[in-house]
Amino acid sequence: MIRLACDYQEGCHPKILEKLIATNLESTVGYGFDPYCESAKAKIRQACQAPNAEVFFLVGGTQTNSTVIRSILRPCEGVIAVTSGHINGHEAGAIEFGGHKVLTLPAHDGKMSAEDLERFIKLTFADASFEHGVIPAMVYISQSTETGSVYSLAELTAISEVAHRHDMPLFIDGARLGYGLASEGCDVTLADIARLADVFYIGGTKVGALLGEAVVFTNTAYTKHFFTIQKQSGAVLAKGRVIGIQFDVLFTDDLYMQISRHAVAMAMKLKEALKAKGYQFYSESPSNQQFVIVDNEKLKELEKSVQVSHWCAVDDSRTAIRLCTSWATTEETIDQVIEML
Amino acid sequence: MIRLACDYQEGCHPKILEKLIATNLESTVGYGFDPYCESAKAKIRQACQAPNAEVFFLVGGTQTNSTVIRSILRPCEGVIAVTSGHINGHEAGAIEFGGHKVLTLPAHDGKMSAEDLERFIKLTFADASFEHGVIPAMVYISQSTETGSVYSLAELTAISEVAHRHDMPLFIDGARLGYGLASEGCDVTLADIARLADVFYIGGTKVGALLGEAVVFTNTAYTKHFFTIQKQSGAVLAKGRVIGIQFDVLFTDDLYMQISRHAVAMAMKLKEALKAKGYQFYSESPSNQQFVIVDNEKLKELEKSVQVSHWCAVDDSRTAIRLCTSWATTEETIDQVIEML
Amino acid sequence: MIRLACDYQEGCHPKILEKLIATNLESTVGYGFDPYCESAKAKIRQACQAPNAEVFFLVGGTQTNSTVIRSILRPCEGVIAVTSGHINGHEAGAIEFGGHKVLTLPAHDGKMSAEDLERFIKLTFADASFEHGVIPAMVYISQSTETGSVYSLAELTAISEVAHRHDMPLFIDGARLGYGLASEGCDVTLADIARLADVFYIGGTKVGALLGEAVVFTNTAYTKHFFTIQKQSGAVLAKGRVIGIQFDVLFTDDLYMQISRHAVAMAMKLKEALKAKGYQFYSESPSNQQFVIVDNEKLKELEKSVQVSHWCAVDDSRTAIRLCTSWATTEETIDQVIEML
Amino acid sequence: MIRLACDYQEGCHPKILEKLIATNLESTVGYGFDPYCESAKAKIRQACQAPNAEVFFLVGGTQTNSTVIRSILRPCEGVIAVTSGHINGHEAGAIEFGGHKVLTLPAHDGKMSAEDLERFIKLTFADASFEHGVIPAMVYISQSTETGSVYSLAELTAISEVAHRHDMPLFIDGARLGYGLASEGCDVTLADIARLADVFYIGGTKVGALLGEAVVFTNTAYTKHFFTIQKQSGAVLAKGRVIGIQFDVLFTDDLYMQISRHAVAMAMKLKEALKAKGYQFYSESPSNQQFVIVDNEKLKELEKSVQVSHWCAVDDSRTAIRLCTSWATTEETIDQVIEML
Repeated sequence: MIRLACDYQEGCHPKILEKLIATNLESTVGYGFDPYCESAKAKIRQACQAPNAEVFFLVGGTQTNSTVIRSILRPCEGVIAVTSGHINGHEAGAIEFGGHKVLTLPAHDGKMSAEDLERFIKLTFADASFEHGVIPAMVYISQSTETGSVYSLAELTAISEVAHRHDMPLFIDGARLGYGLASEGCDVTLADIARLADVFYIGGTKVGALLGEAVVFTNTAYTKHFFTIQKQSGAVLAKGRVIGIQFDVLFTDDLYMQISRHAVAMAMKLKEALKAKGYQFYSESPSNQQFVIVDNEKLKELEKSVQVSHWCAVDDSRTAIRLCTSWATTEETIDQVIEML
Repeated sequence: MIRLACDYQEGCHPKILEKLIATNLESTVGYGFDPYCESAKAKIRQACQAPNAEVFFLVGGTQTNSTVIRSILRPCEGVIAVTSGHINGHEAGAIEFGGHKVLTLPAHDGKMSAEDLERFIKLTFADASFEHGVIPAMVYISQSTETGSVYSLAELTAISEVAHRHDMPLFIDGARLGYGLASEGCDVTLADIARLADVFYIGGTKVGALLGEAVVFTNTAYTKHFFTIQKQSGAVLAKGRVIGIQFDVLFTDDLYMQISRHAVAMAMKLKEALKAKGYQFYSESPSNQQFVIVDNEKLKELEKSVQVSHWCAVDDSRTAIRLCTSWATTEETIDQVIEML
Repeated sequence: MIRLACDYQEGCHPKILEKLIATNLESTVGYGFDPYCESAKAKIRQACQAPNAEVFFLVGGTQTNSTVIRSILRPCEGVIAVTSGHINGHEAGAIEFGGHKVLTLPAHDGKMSAEDLERFIKLTFADASFEHGVIPAMVYISQSTETGSVYSLAELTAISEVAHRHDMPLFIDGARLGYGLASEGCDVTLADIARLADVFYIGGTKVGALLGEAVVFTNTAYTKHFFTIQKQSGAVLAKGRVIGIQFDVLFTDDLYMQISRHAVAMAMKLKEALKAKGYQFYSESPSNQQFVIVDNEKLKELEKSVQVSHWCAVDDSRTAIRLCTSWATTEETIDQVIEML
Repeated sequence: MIRLACDYQEGCHPKILEKLIATNLESTVGYGFDPYCESAKAKIRQACQAPNAEVFFLVGGTQTNSTVIRSILRPCEGVIAVTSGHINGHEAGAIEFGGHKVLTLPAHDGKMSAEDLERFIKLTFADASFEHGVIPAMVYISQSTETGSVYSLAELTAISEVAHRHDMPLFIDGARLGYGLASEGCDVTLADIARLADVFYIGGTKVGALLGEAVVFTNTAYTKHFFTIQKQSGAVLAKGRVIGIQFDVLFTDDLYMQISRHAVAMAMKLKEALKAKGYQFYSESPSNQQFVIVDNEKLKELEKSVQVSHWCAVDDSRTAIRLCTSWATTEETIDQVIEML
């Protein structure tokens, strides 16, 4: 069975396993204060060109989003996101569990527009009775987005400016940051992300690791007690090094971006081949998630051999499906899928 | 440096690494619905002699305690624990973050007494105004406890009976369950735990795994929406198989108990040797945690080579330290430490 | 200054004051267990034709909504409401503070449609991965709504049927229940509300009382520990009789409905007069809230003498304003406002 | 039936009723922005000699404690209180519902000792792993306390100094502030309270009002978004003036202290008479709560005519009961009770 339904269906990059094996019986302190975590943090700071950033390792995306957001917001404050944002629809209410409302803007190709953001904030505070409602206090976006789209440097800069003009931190969900930065035509670097966001995370789970996300606070005004909040959220690993080792490997010799580029290359190959075959796409994605429109009968046949994500019904006879490539996707797999479609 | 400060300072049992390597590039579905998780669950059910139990995999102890407790309690209900219980002092307020008060009883050698429990519940509900206070609604104990002690079958049975007589579920924190069941003189089996508790967990992080705890609900009245609550708590691993594979290995050929017995054997060797040398113990532990009283000068010297946990000052010149053995502790290490002390 | 901005700008109905005076120095037990609360509850049960209902007194609307909702929902469960629902936009995140997401449907003239509700629930549970998202578990509507509209008996019955078919309780926010039931053309009675909802509340604050809302659980499966949850929410009055006395008066000799009818009569008078003068309305309301479109210049002049609510800008030169009548609105006031407009 | 079980068993001081009547049909803005609230705030600021203080009106004690505490603490931070503190045992988990742990110190005659506080804070932060536990971040005491005792100026000053030395705000629960300040031998003034606390509240419910507590933030660094947090907590009254009017009356012509002194005088009369009769007291209280030890048979007889609070069993044949005086207690009542005992 070929599985392209999502980008976390295999284990981890072999180099990570090698390092886990090599270090397995070493004895280190727990909770992320070991030398591997320290080394990984140093490499991440360097890759971000953010020497003063503080880095924390968490386990997964939902956990990271909810922990970061609740560490920053006070009661009655909310986080602004687009309706298709991961925190709005895919986290079972994790943000609300922390006591905070997600304030939604319309998504344009999965992205927030700086104009919408500006208008929303202005309108909110222009209302004489705004103090009777949730106070917008943080901006959340994803790079790449939940629908595969990627913010340009100009777009990110504009959003960052609006957020900061209104004294709100910008939080970038980077569950698929590698695939976003490696996407076709992307003019954004990791250093740009670090410069424009107050806090963001570098996704490991979907980009080569067994598990783990690296949260980077470039605005260290927000890190007070973060470790304890992380602990309270059940988001501290006793054997913290399990994540440190993985990020240490991923940030050695540019491995993180290298495997990200591979995933995107596989996605582009798939996209071009399907376009050549006449397939229509539900959205135009330059990154590792491709949304193809398939006849339902064709789909039924395909699913005998390939696991895909059903995105939505396009009409009675066609479905938009999601095909994800990852660091683990082989060219053979892509060739096979192209042939089947 | 020798590290005996805690029982999560190495990686994982080599057989787990082997299986992670062997399965690494296989493609499976996510979130714990893969064949390895299924296999692990089946083996756990069998080991527990609980064919109808539902098993869920979570990442760590604090996360497991807070997720299980909040999945069961309603608002205004609290969980009863001893003052030294992990949820009371070591989880940074994770239970309270979920909205629930920890109602404390005195600890007797780290354990709850069934008499105290009965008296507390009766007194609470005998008070005409009990509805103005937190409603006790769940009993939490740890096996083995935070101070290394172990409940006997009679003690567990008595607590279970009191809890159930008052319609409260019994939750057993098994972060160190293997070391508890393998402890010297223990007359409790995994099947006993499964029979007496409504829900408990089998600790992986401290007993051979890189990470992971297996929650077992033998009382399936409490599992409604548990997966979603787990997700909301940031406690679902996208690559769920990472935990499934580990428990599958740990519950093959009795590995879990075998490595637990090894850890206890190492602890007993250490204990006897130190007793022979005239050392006093802060508490009498039959399991993998040993609490030795050491002169402060001796301690300073010891710490040049051995990392230990400072438990508490006994007096001005002596300190109680914790030495933990684990599945990874070698006989050589124990011999070295005995010689140094 | 005339104030029609909202329906809570005066004190209380004089008969309530009289009873507060008459009973002032009597000594009674606290927390709502006094004879006045008992009497009020009995009268409410009778008015609702719900002899087995359980009645609780709370202080205000936001408090009531959040306390009722969190007493019913489990973690990861959400409440379905229309976007204009009070709990969605006007409660500063009170529902989210309790840990729950508000799941929104479009509002049709301020109302939820049973068809939308059915479709939303079906679509949610048809999604194979619905367990990764918030579980819809409760339906919330307001009668009358936030925009003055009123559900017909057929509409309410349809919504109640959909909710119950999917095992969800229906909660009706009755902050303006009197004005809704007394609205022009309304075919719904208090007994219908009691029969169709699982829990609802009879608003006092906006309908003649100084403060206070009477929560009626006709489905008593949901009342376990409600008093304690109320206390935990800071929603129990030590001098509980302050609310009991008020509802006792309001439910004596049909006072509640009588003053509600008065408010609606005043609103209808205003509406007809303004229609006759050629005014357009932002929405067609048969109840005590009227939404009139006014030229901005006219509005500026009006506001020298009358406090109104700005609802929204209709275009560059016109604004929709809200004018609320209440039990306290006099015919003279209405005549004056008509003349000014 | 005479009722001395608590201090909220009558309505309100007649002057308050008079003012409610006089203002009843006036139309004012809602939510506490009316002239009566403004006037009350000004008088409170003056009485506190705190011209820059910010004053907010809430409804009851539990609500006030939980709203203030959660407005100040961040996630993972806890509030320090004595075990007998109201927030620890009498609020059904309201603080925990807000996500915060109550960290307890032993009570000495119901009071916190500055030495205990200093030791607790120092010990907590001296522990190398304090970041794994709840971070103490606020100090909570009550004046007068739950057991009728009263802090001296020296005691309050010492606690305030310890709290501030460790950068923690001091919050004084003044549900019975009047009775505390008017207590026999008390050397503390309202201005002292305002000077030593960062935030405190002046209890209305127990001291002459129908309901209502006035929160005074002398440290205005903590008031950001307080109104919205109050709203989110369901702690804003639509007809805010209902509380404003009451405090306006209570702070006119020293009424608040005058009625407080009356209540204490009644308590002292009761105490002296019972002492003269040979009664023993469970604690030595100089304020409006008296804890008398009574033979169980005598108690049974007494309760035919007088409602009292059962505090605790002293031994098999005797019970400590609480008798509370209030602004409403008459000398006749006290004489009757003395005679009966």
